[in-house]
Amino acid sequence: MKKKMILDVDTGVDDAQAIMIALSSPHVEILGITCCHGNTPLENVLKNTLRVLKVCGRLDIPVYKGFSKPLLSNKRNAGDYHGKDGLGDVPDPDAPGVELLQKKKAAQAMIKIAKAHPEEVILVATGPLTNLAVAVQLDPSFPNKLKALYIMGGNTNSRGNTTVCGEFNFVADPESAYIVLDRYTCPTYIASWEFSCRSSLPWSFCDEWLSRKSEKAAFMKKITALSMTKAKSADYQKEVIAGGGFNPCDVFALAAAVDDDFIVEKEEVAVTVELNGTNTRGMMVLDYMELLKKEHKVFIMKTVDLEKLKKMLINAIK
Amino acid sequence: MKKKMILDVDTGVDDAQAIMIALSSPHVEILGITCCHGNTPLENVLKNTLRVLKVCGRLDIPVYKGFSKPLLSNKRNAGDYHGKDGLGDVPDPDAPGVELLQKKKAAQAMIKIAKAHPEEVILVATGPLTNLAVAVQLDPSFPNKLKALYIMGGNTNSRGNTTVCGEFNFVADPESAYIVLDRYTCPTYIASWEFSCRSSLPWSFCDEWLSRKSEKAAFMKKITALSMTKAKSADYQKEVIAGGGFNPCDVFALAAAVDDDFIVEKEEVAVTVELNGTNTRGMMVLDYMELLKKEHKVFIMKTVDLEKLKKMLINAIK
Amino acid sequence: MKKKMILDVDTGVDDAQAIMIALSSPHVEILGITCCHGNTPLENVLKNTLRVLKVCGRLDIPVYKGFSKPLLSNKRNAGDYHGKDGLGDVPDPDAPGVELLQKKKAAQAMIKIAKAHPEEVILVATGPLTNLAVAVQLDPSFPNKLKALYIMGGNTNSRGNTTVCGEFNFVADPESAYIVLDRYTCPTYIASWEFSCRSSLPWSFCDEWLSRKSEKAAFMKKITALSMTKAKSADYQKEVIAGGGFNPCDVFALAAAVDDDFIVEKEEVAVTVELNGTNTRGMMVLDYMELLKKEHKVFIMKTVDLEKLKKMLINAIK
Amino acid sequence: MKKKMILDVDTGVDDAQAIMIALSSPHVEILGITCCHGNTPLENVLKNTLRVLKVCGRLDIPVYKGFSKPLLSNKRNAGDYHGKDGLGDVPDPDAPGVELLQKKKAAQAMIKIAKAHPEEVILVATGPLTNLAVAVQLDPSFPNKLKALYIMGGNTNSRGNTTVCGEFNFVADPESAYIVLDRYTCPTYIASWEFSCRSSLPWSFCDEWLSRKSEKAAFMKKITALSMTKAKSADYQKEVIAGGGFNPCDVFALAAAVDDDFIVEKEEVAVTVELNGTNTRGMMVLDYMELLKKEHKVFIMKTVDLEKLKKMLINAIK
Ligand SMILES: [Ca+2]
Ligand SMILES: [Ca+2]
Ligand SMILES: [Ca+2]
Ligand SMILES: [Ca+2]
Repeated sequence: MKKKMILDVDTGVDDAQAIMIALSSPHVEILGITCCHGNTPLENVLKNTLRVLKVCGRLDIPVYKGFSKPLLSNKRNAGDYHGKDGLGDVPDPDAPGVELLQKKKAAQAMIKIAKAHPEEVILVATGPLTNLAVAVQLDPSFPNKLKALYIMGGNTNSRGNTTVCGEFNFVADPESAYIVLDRYTCPTYIASWEFSCRSSLPWSFCDEWLSRKSEKAAFMKKITALSMTKAKSADYQKEVIAGGGFNPCDVFALAAAVDDDFIVEKEEVAVTVELNGTNTRGMMVLDYMELLKKEHKVFIMKTVDLEKLKKMLINAIK
Repeated sequence: MKKKMILDVDTGVDDAQAIMIALSSPHVEILGITCCHGNTPLENVLKNTLRVLKVCGRLDIPVYKGFSKPLLSNKRNAGDYHGKDGLGDVPDPDAPGVELLQKKKAAQAMIKIAKAHPEEVILVATGPLTNLAVAVQLDPSFPNKLKALYIMGGNTNSRGNTTVCGEFNFVADPESAYIVLDRYTCPTYIASWEFSCRSSLPWSFCDEWLSRKSEKAAFMKKITALSMTKAKSADYQKEVIAGGGFNPCDVFALAAAVDDDFIVEKEEVAVTVELNGTNTRGMMVLDYMELLKKEHKVFIMKTVDLEKLKKMLINAIK
Repeated sequence: MKKKMILDVDTGVDDAQAIMIALSSPHVEILGITCCHGNTPLENVLKNTLRVLKVCGRLDIPVYKGFSKPLLSNKRNAGDYHGKDGLGDVPDPDAPGVELLQKKKAAQAMIKIAKAHPEEVILVATGPLTNLAVAVQLDPSFPNKLKALYIMGGNTNSRGNTTVCGEFNFVADPESAYIVLDRYTCPTYIASWEFSCRSSLPWSFCDEWLSRKSEKAAFMKKITALSMTKAKSADYQKEVIAGGGFNPCDVFALAAAVDDDFIVEKEEVAVTVELNGTNTRGMMVLDYMELLKKEHKVFIMKTVDLEKLKKMLINAIK
Repeated sequence: MKKKMILDVDTGVDDAQAIMIALSSPHVEILGITCCHGNTPLENVLKNTLRVLKVCGRLDIPVYKGFSKPLLSNKRNAGDYHGKDGLGDVPDPDAPGVELLQKKKAAQAMIKIAKAHPEEVILVATGPLTNLAVAVQLDPSFPNKLKALYIMGGNTNSRGNTTVCGEFNFVADPESAYIVLDRYTCPTYIASWEFSCRSSLPWSFCDEWLSRKSEKAAFMKKITALSMTKAKSADYQKEVIAGGGFNPCDVFALAAAVDDDFIVEKEEVAVTVELNGTNTRGMMVLDYMELLKKEHKVFIMKTVDLEKLKKMLINAIK
């Protein structure tokens, strides 16, 4: 049986890479893609997502419009890194129009899909967690109907990439991240910022990967060019831990959802999100000492099979 | 020329070890020991410090009474780990009396000593930083008169040992830690909790060390027994990162002050202390991205020469 | 034309009083009652609301189930004051069953009703603001479709009734209160805790009122007895400012919505909610100095026509 | 017997007025004036204080230098209102030099003076509370040696004059205000910002007062001119509650200390200072519900004898 997935994205270059891996995985069935504000304003996220599906010839996959703002409404975009349009600033004059979007909204769609396939759906979230936070508020039983949740977001060692101690996806909506880590008691796997830094691929692989010949490869090369340049800049290097290299953040969460053997080493620990700190607002907090007395624990990804990752990336652009 | 030092302590078993290493270092001259609340109430700290000096035959070293409370006065002791009396609960009926203490108070004494030896004095702080915080308030020029400051305290990866994200010395007086990291612009070296965990010595060394024959060794064995048992407990292991072993926290700061070659690898970064978080109050914050625009940076200790450490520990109890 | 209203309640004795005033006002048409957690768990709120409608012979009014938890899910009930069941602990064996509830959920119902009657609907909120917060997240244009919003909640002078500085409805879901004050840019009127204390009616009126003869009066007397006793207790008096008396909090918001001449004096000021304070979390903040640069201002109720209030209360139980 | 006083000031026009009232009170003996950063940088405070003493022919009174920075060192001056030099920007070319200052520092001087006259000294604090906070840290028994403490500072109804909810003296050093309200358990009287607004004198009195003929009156008129103009401005009016008028803030605290019958109505309540709020940091918190379980309560001034105030002001410039 195929793995049923919902992808919750803020498409972005790495979200695009994640979507393309999912599309190229023979054992994965994408039941829907829900869009959220994040890397770029929601309008761009919707367009970018449709562009990715078009390149892959999969505009049949339903795309849902989610929230354009975080719960407390101080929006923060990461447009700088992924380009002004969130996808490398290489516009497609023939991009599909938003009339292709579903009528139903993202949070409600998630709930309906999970209800239709109880305990079968894997939710992969690679943007701010606003859609998920509202979904559990609308239906507190939603998390229990999921098979698993994979998140790219948060940090494990107080090494921020957006604020001093905060990772972008969590900082972009700290309250939603808090709600999700508090109320999603399904099996949960987290690819943190520091983990993704430590799991980067060498630039040499990346160069070889992007030089392949195919329509998808050409698209990938085009949308990736800008962020690749930025990733090699001195300022970006300050955000990074453990050397540099090609860090396709969101892909780690998706890859773990696709292949149960992708995660080599993980850690089980209760987590929450700091909401009040001056420098730590939005920081993921790991409760190793079990002081918070939380029953639910998540799996923090520690090491993964990078060879599998390479294969997935290569398949994604074939 | 000998290195002139002031030790600011909350004696504690590991403070005792640090003091004994300093006393046994031929190139170190201790100009004074200033006492602070911390591991145990100030009265015990004073007594414990005098007991250590007595065992080492150095009651000539001036000991100063510092603050019994943190700035905001919510005292927190760590009596559990170091014993009720802070020194393993093995009382000495002939312990020296507090009449041996200096009349001058700790903060004022620090200032006077540094003034008498401008840019020659190394301050080693192995307890909460209350004395240092008030000293710089009393004399803003005090830090500039120091040669260097070595601190045991804070955490670098949000791994707390006292609160979810907070290390004891900083959590015991977060405002003082904040003030010190803000206003001590002399060269500053920090031995963090996570660093000390990663730099632990094997228990086998510890056993061999404590089995040596000398009056000092017997004293060390006696005061260390309780905390050693606790260190091997399951609950304590939750606080620890990177395996277990013998972690003489305070000793790392002192050893770095004694021997300029002790630190093998260090990192220079601006730091501050989170004062407002729910789970992160008292956590040290490292500003790798330079978002705080602080001019002063500190040296975070990364790796040290453990063979040197062993030798220092052995010499300390000869 | 009748005033179209949605009542968002956490029924509660004073919510019950407010509902009964609305029902007895000839110029008011209630389009729906949406229920929220608050004074008592949501299940009780639903039951209590139906009981009130039954006593008034108005079970035709649609009642909608809203959220059982605040956004960040640390539920806080005020069961003590309004009785364990939220309505004076005088159960009705023939209470109507929850099968009478609408299928649609509260937040979605609000949105639909307002859409059907653009700029005609007055929303009166007398419980925690969770339903309203999620509604604006689901449909950012919802507030602009309202004619006006009347809120009972918040405090104007840092005089809490639940925490040191916090009023119950706001403290029960501070994030929702923040969202509503931030995003509801329709004309907004607030009956604060301190205002309600200063506008209390004499006990003598209350005694006379409750001694009237009618089925509704008997019901009112029964459900009010417990909270009246509590209101006269020493502990409750500590919460109160400006003398004692009968303070039907929620009724002030409803009365202002019913009769445009009820408010005699009001103040226009930008407001927000403190989310981070140790003692002030959930406190309403009034920005008299315009430091927050908020465009939208609300009307803070200052004095009202108490004779009108008495008449409304009397009519409500006829 | 004369009342022995220490005045802790950040001179400021209203501090100057307070000092001059104290000097003109036959039953008051000023044992010392301690200076603190605040309205204007410490250097100006020192100079301004000496200028006031010179005009009054009382340069015999010892003046002590206190702290130039708040505990956490984010200095905030109110130079705008009191003029760039803190005293109306009317410099005196023959101002006395700082060589007249005492050698001893403010905090230590306070402690020494109180020790010399146990339970006889009244401390009147009309600036940020840094000197007092450090004094109690240096000598925890200091507050018990005082007869009473009078403070101008804090707010009682969340009406800020500096931040949204914060009054200048408290906001200028919130941690010090917290420490003082926590650890000064002597009888304590507080003249809050809102109280002072409600107790303002009519401008007509002020005009008449300043038109008197004397050297002191001329000095007063000169230094008061600038702040009087500002006080009548639209922007300042936003800070004020309860009408306008001449509000000599600091004078209320001093007058209460001078004349035991000055306070007509007061309220006894436990208080603290909010340290963590986004909009409420530095706000005084009144614990009417006794949720904080503090033993020590302070007296909040409610109404005072304004005729006495007028007489004091008139005598001060004779
Ligand atoms: Ca993403
Ligand atoms: Ca220590
Ligand atoms: Ca209510
Ligand atoms: Ca002043």
